[in-house]
Amino acid sequence: MSARSSVEEHASFVRSLLSGLGARPTERVAVADALGRITAAPVESPIALPPFRNAQMDGFAVRASDVAGAATAPVTLPVAGEVAAAPGTPAVLAPGTAVRIMTGAQVPEGADAVVPVEDTEPVEDTEPAGGDGGAVRILVARAAGDYVREAGSDLAAGDDVLPPGLKLGSRHLAAAAASGLAELLVRERVRVAVVSTGSELVAPGAELGAGEIPDANGIALAAAVRAAGALVVREARVRDDVERLRAELDAAREAGAELVITSGGISKGAYEVVRELLEPLGAWVGAVAMQPGGPQAAAAYRGMPVIGFPGNPVSAQLSFELFVAPTLRAIAGLPAASVVSLPLAEPLVSVAGRRQFLRGRRDDEGRAVLVGGPGSHLVAALAASDLLIVVPEDVTALAAGEVVEAVEL
Amino acid sequence: MSARSSVEEHASFVRSLLSGLGARPTERVAVADALGRITAAPVESPIALPPFRNAQMDGFAVRASDVAGAATAPVTLPVAGEVAAAPGTPAVLAPGTAVRIMTGAQVPEGADAVVPVEDTEPVEDTEPAGGDGGAVRILVARAAGDYVREAGSDLAAGDDVLPPGLKLGSRHLAAAAASGLAELLVRERVRVAVVSTGSELVAPGAELGAGEIPDANGIALAAAVRAAGALVVREARVRDDVERLRAELDAAREAGAELVITSGGISKGAYEVVRELLEPLGAWVGAVAMQPGGPQAAAAYRGMPVIGFPGNPVSAQLSFELFVAPTLRAIAGLPAASVVSLPLAEPLVSVAGRRQFLRGRRDDEGRAVLVGGPGSHLVAALAASDLLIVVPEDVTALAAGEVVEAVEL
Repeated sequence: MSARSSVEEHASFVRSLLSGLGARPTERVAVADALGRITAAPVESPIALPPFRNAQMDGFAVRASDVAGAATAPVTLPVAGEVAAAPGTPAVLAPGTAVRIMTGAQVPEGADAVVPVEDTEPVEDTEPAGGDGGAVRILVARAAGDYVREAGSDLAAGDDVLPPGLKLGSRHLAAAAASGLAELLVRERVRVAVVSTGSELVAPGAELGAGEIPDANGIALAAAVRAAGALVVREARVRDDVERLRAELDAAREAGAELVITSGGISKGAYEVVRELLEPLGAWVGAVAMQPGGPQAAAAYRGMPVIGFPGNPVSAQLSFELFVAPTLRAIAGLPAASVVSLPLAEPLVSVAGRRQFLRGRRDDEGRAVLVGGPGSHLVAALAASDLLIVVPEDVTALAAGEVVEAVEL
Repeated sequence: MSARSSVEEHASFVRSLLSGLGARPTERVAVADALGRITAAPVESPIALPPFRNAQMDGFAVRASDVAGAATAPVTLPVAGEVAAAPGTPAVLAPGTAVRIMTGAQVPEGADAVVPVEDTEPVEDTEPAGGDGGAVRILVARAAGDYVREAGSDLAAGDDVLPPGLKLGSRHLAAAAASGLAELLVRERVRVAVVSTGSELVAPGAELGAGEIPDANGIALAAAVRAAGALVVREARVRDDVERLRAELDAAREAGAELVITSGGISKGAYEVVRELLEPLGAWVGAVAMQPGGPQAAAAYRGMPVIGFPGNPVSAQLSFELFVAPTLRAIAGLPAASVVSLPLAEPLVSVAGRRQFLRGRRDDEGRAVLVGGPGSHLVAALAASDLLIVVPEDVTALAAGEVVEAVEL
């Protein structure tokens, strides 16, 4: 039997196999579809923001010098027209007049201030100040620039509106859209294939014959890949047949997979297809000092990393979290899993020489309670857990009240 | 001018308009597509987990009583066959024999323990212990039940495998799939339509004529709706034409929208289409004591809530976060936005009587730095921010070093 690797050794080995994934290819996606993606380069705005000088308030566009007198007494100006926030060439303001203006509308040439409608009164003996022919009484003097948004006051044309390496939230998409951009250059998501091995596996929901079980790993690992920000490009279930597995890996490669995750077929029994196919090609297939999830495999198949997990569903899910998820999350700009310290609600025992990951949940008093036993088949117990309690290799027993570290699920 | 509502009053009014959304319709989705969805009912496992008694290790299935002698000296048993993890009726173990068994394989009838392969030796003068005809030397005695996973030891058939109201992570999908379920009953996502109003708006990326601007609100609000866990069923841009807006609201209702978010058309100018259409139907259209985002509207249109935001993109995005996102997030099982307290890196001034939301970012020393000015058009500055600094209504100035609350973006 080969020497047992430590969790750190295997994590480091897998990380090195996955290191090529860090240099991401790029792709153009519609701004509307870019939520959560990561910019691949600085994003330059082709236009100024705002693109033209516009009104900050509903009111009257004026020349500040024409309303300076309002500092002492109201000033009445004829209303020479109205501009809405609508397409068209800007109006022109004649000296000594006002133009009614709506928020966002182009400030007429010649005007240098907007008087908000609240600071005005219609002149009663004229038509309402809603169009040509009326007049307006200006109650407050305004300085040049008041309530006018200058073109480029948010951003100049050619300036960067978004930095590279930014995870795009709705406010970033807003700025890109406001800049008149239809597409953004983003990093491609990592393309992953998920392969479940085992002749006993059937599709969940299919009728079970004797000795058959539903394939939980395919669904769980594909969902975990997606939750880690990567793309599942292929999902397959293969029976214990080396040639079928080889064909599936070839197909995954053909589908552009940059990484294959397998479950099953790596322990010391017969019919260990992942081991049988990949060990002769140089794969490391061995034992890691952890429980559950001891058997592990890692290889490059025709240049494509293949990371092999045990078939027990708890082992497979834990192995993914431990060895692959951190790399995928980092690439996708997602936070690492959070690790908390909390006291045990009950004593526990563990195996010497292995890092134990016990399923648990936080009770109402903030203590860690064990859920189910240590068995790697307890998939329902894992689902009922929200903590993975970590028991170090050199610890074989802990008393209630002792503080442990736990990964939050 | 109508009295100004407080932020709390308007939030409470919108919440009441949206209260009907809490009672979610349900739908069946494939387990593989259910990541992040919320269970609508307890999920019962139709089968026991594991569904049959199986081996926990690669090794030899035996009768514990046949290997009791190994406690003092090795016991040699003839190997009567081999069982893999594969479909088929279980083997039968004759007393006084061993059957080679793989992890996960059905334990033969008559066997009550598995001896791990590590605790055995092949008998050299027979064929390798890989099939009929060989023999195996058992080095360690085992009690009945050792390394045997009993059917139902994780979960009995008919037991609940998942509770209602659970946000589904990969481990929950694993348990559902292991239970042989192909579909899950989940809550439908809230169906939202997003409507941008304004004759000046064009699709981002389209060439801009004079007075035209790209519609940033449609993309931003649709992305924000998705980020809040809801579904965008329709996105539209309508020019300032009441009949077009009416037709769009009817179309949204036809598309099953349960909520419409509009931007623009609610202030005090002319061409305020949202106000013009909805006010006669009983909408509240008025001012909220906040900046940016003062003008707000809320209505029920043919029984469908319509929440109207100002057209300025910063106002629209902030209004969504403040008034609509909390309800959508709670329905989708997403955490509320987090509010932090931190000191100001610089002094600021604010308007009396309005709650001010200033854009800022956290500097290297953990202090809040202002980004851009208070203008509601500063969409690039918002994109460069990671904090919304909240300045209460009764505060008009704060010194550097004073502690403020801020919403993390």
